[in-house]
Amino acid sequence: MGAPGTSVPWESKKVARQGEIRTGSHCALCIIAVTTAPAKSPLGTGSARSQPAGTGRGGRWECLTHGMCLSQRFAYKVHRSFAARRAERQQQEARCSQQPAAAPVTHCAARMALPDTTEDTQGFGLANVNPDLASERLTASFSVPRLTAVLDGGAERTRLRRAVVDVIESDPVFSRENQYFQSQNERYEAAVRKAVHVRKKMQEMGWSEDGPESVYVYRALSGDVAFLLHRVFMRSISVLGSDKQVAKWIPLATEYQIIGSYAQTELGHGTYLQGLETTAVFDISTQEFILNTPTISAMKWWPGDMGRSATHTVAFAQLYIHGKCYGVHPFIVQIRSLQDHSLCPGVIAGDIGPKMNFEHIDNGYLMLKNVRIPRENMLNKFCEVQPDGTYKRRGSQKINYFTMTSVRVSLISDEVILPLMKACTIAIRYSVVRRQSKLNPGEEEAKILDYQTQQEKLLPQLAAAYAFHFINNYLHKLFNRGYREIQGRNFDSLPELHAFSSGFKAMVTQFCTSGLEICLRACGGHGYSLLSGLPSLYTKILASCIYEGENTILLLQTARFLIKCFTAASASQPVPPSVTYLSAMKPGKCPAKDKLDFLSPDIYTEAYQHAAIRLISSTAAKLQDLIQSGVERHEAWNQCTVQLVQAAKAHCHYITVKNFVETVEKLENTAGIQNIMKHLCDLFALHGIFSNAGIFLHDGYITGAQMDMVTASYLELLGIIRKDAVPLVDAFDFTDKSLNSALGNYDGQVYQRLYEWARKAPTNKQISPAYEKYLKPLLHNKLSKL
Amino acid sequence: MGAPGTSVPWESKKVARQGEIRTGSHCALCIIAVTTAPAKSPLGTGSARSQPAGTGRGGRWECLTHGMCLSQRFAYKVHRSFAARRAERQQQEARCSQQPAAAPVTHCAARMALPDTTEDTQGFGLANVNPDLASERLTASFSVPRLTAVLDGGAERTRLRRAVVDVIESDPVFSRENQYFQSQNERYEAAVRKAVHVRKKMQEMGWSEDGPESVYVYRALSGDVAFLLHRVFMRSISVLGSDKQVAKWIPLATEYQIIGSYAQTELGHGTYLQGLETTAVFDISTQEFILNTPTISAMKWWPGDMGRSATHTVAFAQLYIHGKCYGVHPFIVQIRSLQDHSLCPGVIAGDIGPKMNFEHIDNGYLMLKNVRIPRENMLNKFCEVQPDGTYKRRGSQKINYFTMTSVRVSLISDEVILPLMKACTIAIRYSVVRRQSKLNPGEEEAKILDYQTQQEKLLPQLAAAYAFHFINNYLHKLFNRGYREIQGRNFDSLPELHAFSSGFKAMVTQFCTSGLEICLRACGGHGYSLLSGLPSLYTKILASCIYEGENTILLLQTARFLIKCFTAASASQPVPPSVTYLSAMKPGKCPAKDKLDFLSPDIYTEAYQHAAIRLISSTAAKLQDLIQSGVERHEAWNQCTVQLVQAAKAHCHYITVKNFVETVEKLENTAGIQNIMKHLCDLFALHGIFSNAGIFLHDGYITGAQMDMVTASYLELLGIIRKDAVPLVDAFDFTDKSLNSALGNYDGQVYQRLYEWARKAPTNKQISPAYEKYLKPLLHNKLSKL
Repeated sequence: MGAPGTSVPWESKKVARQGEIRTGSHCALCIIAVTTAPAKSPLGTGSARSQPAGTGRGGRWECLTHGMCLSQRFAYKVHRSFAARRAERQQQEARCSQQPAAAPVTHCAARMALPDTTEDTQGFGLANVNPDLASERLTASFSVPRLTAVLDGGAERTRLRRAVVDVIESDPVFSRENQYFQSQNERYEAAVRKAVHVRKKMQEMGWSEDGPESVYVYRALSGDVAFLLHRVFMRSISVLGSDKQVAKWIPLATEYQIIGSYAQTELGHGTYLQGLETTAVFDISTQEFILNTPTISAMKWWPGDMGRSATHTVAFAQLYIHGKCYGVHPFIVQIRSLQDHSLCPGVIAGDIGPKMNFEHIDNGYLMLKNVRIPRENMLNKFCEVQPDGTYKRRGSQKINYFTMTSVRVSLISDEVILPLMKACTIAIRYSVVRRQSKLNPGEEEAKILDYQTQQEKLLPQLAAAYAFHFINNYLHKLFNRGYREIQGRNFDSLPELHAFSSGFKAMVTQFCTSGLEICLRACGGHGYSLLSGLPSLYTKILASCIYEGENTILLLQTARFLIKCFTAASASQPVPPSVTYLSAMKPGKCPAKDKLDFLSPDIYTEAYQHAAIRLISSTAAKLQDLIQSGVERHEAWNQCTVQLVQAAKAHCHYITVKNFVETVEKLENTAGIQNIMKHLCDLFALHGIFSNAGIFLHDGYITGAQMDMVTASYLELLGIIRKDAVPLVDAFDFTDKSLNSALGNYDGQVYQRLYEWARKAPTNKQISPAYEKYLKPLLHNKLSKL
Repeated sequence: MGAPGTSVPWESKKVARQGEIRTGSHCALCIIAVTTAPAKSPLGTGSARSQPAGTGRGGRWECLTHGMCLSQRFAYKVHRSFAARRAERQQQEARCSQQPAAAPVTHCAARMALPDTTEDTQGFGLANVNPDLASERLTASFSVPRLTAVLDGGAERTRLRRAVVDVIESDPVFSRENQYFQSQNERYEAAVRKAVHVRKKMQEMGWSEDGPESVYVYRALSGDVAFLLHRVFMRSISVLGSDKQVAKWIPLATEYQIIGSYAQTELGHGTYLQGLETTAVFDISTQEFILNTPTISAMKWWPGDMGRSATHTVAFAQLYIHGKCYGVHPFIVQIRSLQDHSLCPGVIAGDIGPKMNFEHIDNGYLMLKNVRIPRENMLNKFCEVQPDGTYKRRGSQKINYFTMTSVRVSLISDEVILPLMKACTIAIRYSVVRRQSKLNPGEEEAKILDYQTQQEKLLPQLAAAYAFHFINNYLHKLFNRGYREIQGRNFDSLPELHAFSSGFKAMVTQFCTSGLEICLRACGGHGYSLLSGLPSLYTKILASCIYEGENTILLLQTARFLIKCFTAASASQPVPPSVTYLSAMKPGKCPAKDKLDFLSPDIYTEAYQHAAIRLISSTAAKLQDLIQSGVERHEAWNQCTVQLVQAAKAHCHYITVKNFVETVEKLENTAGIQNIMKHLCDLFALHGIFSNAGIFLHDGYITGAQMDMVTASYLELLGIIRKDAVPLVDAFDFTDKSLNSALGNYDGQVYQRLYEWARKAPTNKQISPAYEKYLKPLLHNKLSKL
């Protein structure tokens, strides 16, 4: 092994794909496979200057790329933490090489003989990749590592991500191994332990909370960690607090001398913040605010980290000065003693009880009864209560508004798209290992992914995962540009950004939630077991439809923007770039003549555009008609909301398809990447038309005969993409630990793993609690003479 | 109180509905409210001859109806168990009367002052019905009790159901109060305790397992009870066993001298039973079968009651005699000692670990290693292995086939429709109590059910619950007729029954599962809390899409039947009654001229019929084309399966609409019942057209302009039904205990109840497990000087 920081051993790995390189070596931190020739990798991109300096397996290799992207200190740490990890990998690779790619693929892996009845499953076959899965990897039409790099935003990023993931996953404190067996209490305790440990770990590794590693750290933890609201607490102080407040509170929070939460939602109010009922009355005599929870429904409810952990919180309350209400403001309130963690006087707080998921989070409730805090505890970057009770507003709060909308964009990737990608990985791998019934009477049982109905369940979800990955990139670009403009005091793009963040958050969470449910159900009974990993992914993603803005309300905000823009466009006034298409309404019909025409992005993108314009314009017309017929404006709006939601969805769908098309056009046309992405883009677009046929048929833009062409092309695409289905999920590059699924592992040994995991269940380690009490008396009541 | 069996006291109750009687008395077992005049109830139906013989509250009343429907013994038991229950009811009614119906309805219930910080919530307002909910009950357009009787199949049944529910719910052993806080172990233990207790209870009450009370008993337990597979074990022996076997095993099982399970599904095979891998080899020398689990995937997996409870199981295995395989057969196998419950030699069994729901069930795994059972243990009603190894088949197995399909029908009501009804009750009650944001800027915050989007989420689910209730009745009638025919050795109706049971199981479970998810999400964050009751209903109903036949496979079985019938109908051959419409294909267009036309059942039923025929015929044509073009039959079938599924769904949807229409036509036209049911029927039908517009627009049967009419009528219906939404869910007549929801109680005090229930969470009764270990060291590390 080389000296720390200068060299890293190379490992042999079978790279299963069609193309130049079949078997080679790769750096433990690099994705670029390298031939045994000690030359520059022919696959190396500009940033990946891998240069092997040794002589293959067992020899010594030097990785310049590795040296490039990592500090010496980091490399050394990584190096150490790799010791165990590497052993595991080598084992895995050894298995792969035991399974020659050219060997005849038989359907025997699941049919291996049982050992003795001693319950010993060592040697049960976990050493091999299931041939039914291995064979799928031999026929990829594209380079899997190259696609991974595309998804990561470059090979450099892939290396960094893998390095971070390796560090986290090789640390037993972060293990999620027994997660599915843990109680709410155990999950909570583990989450706190991880939160404390991750801080230490990051300090040790020299990673900052703002650094690029941080994203990958939390991604690797799969969110299963406490103090996430502590981070929101800090962000809210940074954004809403004065310099003085930031200087006082942020260091305390950073050093965990206090633990914060963020108390906005109340029992009676979630989306409608103006309706919050908690009060903060300014007492001029003592220069304090007196906080109260005047009603049951005013109780703070849901804030994470608040039920059992937090010492402080930012609480939102209606500000009263001299009896006058000034609206909702944020206040820093201490809720637990720093000495013994007991509740402060006047504070009632606790855990809101079990939820569908997030058992590791102590979502809490909070009641305040005459709790006094100093005047300085109102976050006062934008407004202040002066000692004499004068209320002063300063600066613009628009930046804060921007922060709120950007949170929606920031959660889409980790909380919504990644879970769908994981679910696709699990369900697709399982679907080539599971054989059930016969497709052809004479043959062996078929892989269930060979059934058209199974393809039609899973492959559109896979296409959507890619589509949403790309639209998410687009949104981030848009927001970064918007952020720069806003920094320069230009707030023009705010309405568009708000409409975007709202609409896409709603569309993506909705689509991914149904997609995940489809993946779960597509795995049959085994998908329903927690051990598949799918139930917890589902219950987690479901929450994303509700938090950070309920989806229907968000879509209506997008709709409001669209109606406004449509009206402006109709009057030839300028509109934001993303909606200029609203002024381009053409009366025409879809020009497609046969099913192949529907593989033309122009054809389907125009169809989406047409549908979006039609829905927006017809709803705008209905709204206008109602108002002109004397219906009050707000009532007219309400009577149009079902259709407004449809219109907003159609707009977002159109933008997503358009962006997918544009992304594919820009992709490198090598290693088969562009080709497979084009197929996925087509599939995403045609699936949308097939599933929402009514929208396209309504005004005859697409005829029934054309819809039959759409269907034909759509179903054919399923067959095409099915061949690459496994490589397409392999490209997501999830480790087995991050999937945490008995069905989804890289080796496809699903039955063995289900059994091994089930045996670890606590229910199998205890004597049945019902036997002595109930079963024995029952059975022994009249002991059978059998 | 009157003498047992001859009289039952009357209780005063406010009957909240429009009509003749506002305040009256009703028998504890009757739903018919009676005026204080001691005369026959003007509402009394033929079967409900209520005759008060006393003088109101506190006086003595005699209930002839009650005497009619209950045995003296039963009445006495009920009578006793009512003591506690009655007290509770009286309290509830006292609250109602404190809340005068005519009192101005204010939005104050949730805004009541908080008590001291002593966490004492006595007097928090639980004594009153939330006025926002109470007001909804004053304007019902129909008689709620009458509708309840319609749903139950007569007032007599309602009385019986309520009586049984009262008995079960007043027994603390059956309490589900802390269910949401329990671990898998605790749930399992409670389920066994309930199973043992319910047997005792039923004996005590004189209720038999086959009696009418039994259905209501298990319904009241909400399935949260062990030994359900024990019942399947018994049923399979009854159906598949010889008279001798029945005589031997059924008494043992009935007396719980053994506890049975039913081991069919294996790790590797669920739907495809022919693929089961467990073997049973006949050993002629010892006259035994030797059972083995030859592979990992052959392990029995999922059987309920098997993981920790069962002593015996019916195991399905491939029968081998002299090396020849005779296919899958059922064998009775003992797996645990009757003495000490230890596993029998050669048996490995345990719990398969946590699932999305059914934590109370010990779904198990089972491996067999040379387990020997006597020849007599093969269930041999239909086939037998004789001592010399001769295999003999006898009689027809068709009746067994019938049994399998009828299970699908039997589960639809309790496992699928009732959960949706409960979810509708919870979500709709919550939606008139929850106020959020302002509909009209000048007014107070609006009830969320007043938003069109919320109506569009919930009311179609409500309509579907009714539609499915009626189609379920229809299916049961069909099956009872089929059963009689089969008893008479006429098997002609079997294919139709099989197609029905498959298609409707799939359609209803699919629809109800999405419907339940919609209800959950429509309650926002609170719906996501386990305390709402919705998550457990959802995770339970989701399983119904998978078990007893995976839905896609079932729909394809229906499709196969339809294609066959279509071909026959095209050739003018006779087809079963339910599909005669396939020969009635008319080329016409929908004749609707304005939106009101779409409230005509003829118009929409014909549209559904047309769509179903079109989908079936076009898929049949595609299939034919493929085969004629040289594609092999099985491959052609596979290429059509996505469309075949669509066709099968369209058929089931059509039959459901048609049945709803016919049911409404037959309903009594009194007390507003027929009117409101007509609205729901219209809503169900138009929702289906609105949501599947493409199917109807495809060939121009419905034009775009007509689709706008559908939309207009559909949206208007939402507003109409919204007024009756609460009475419509009240008519389902769920007790608070059966809903087990902090959001869904009859009194609508959601915020108070959420808080009270959350406080009971074990997480609030223990010291944070993380404090001493992690939080304290962290916070005390550098103790803040704050």
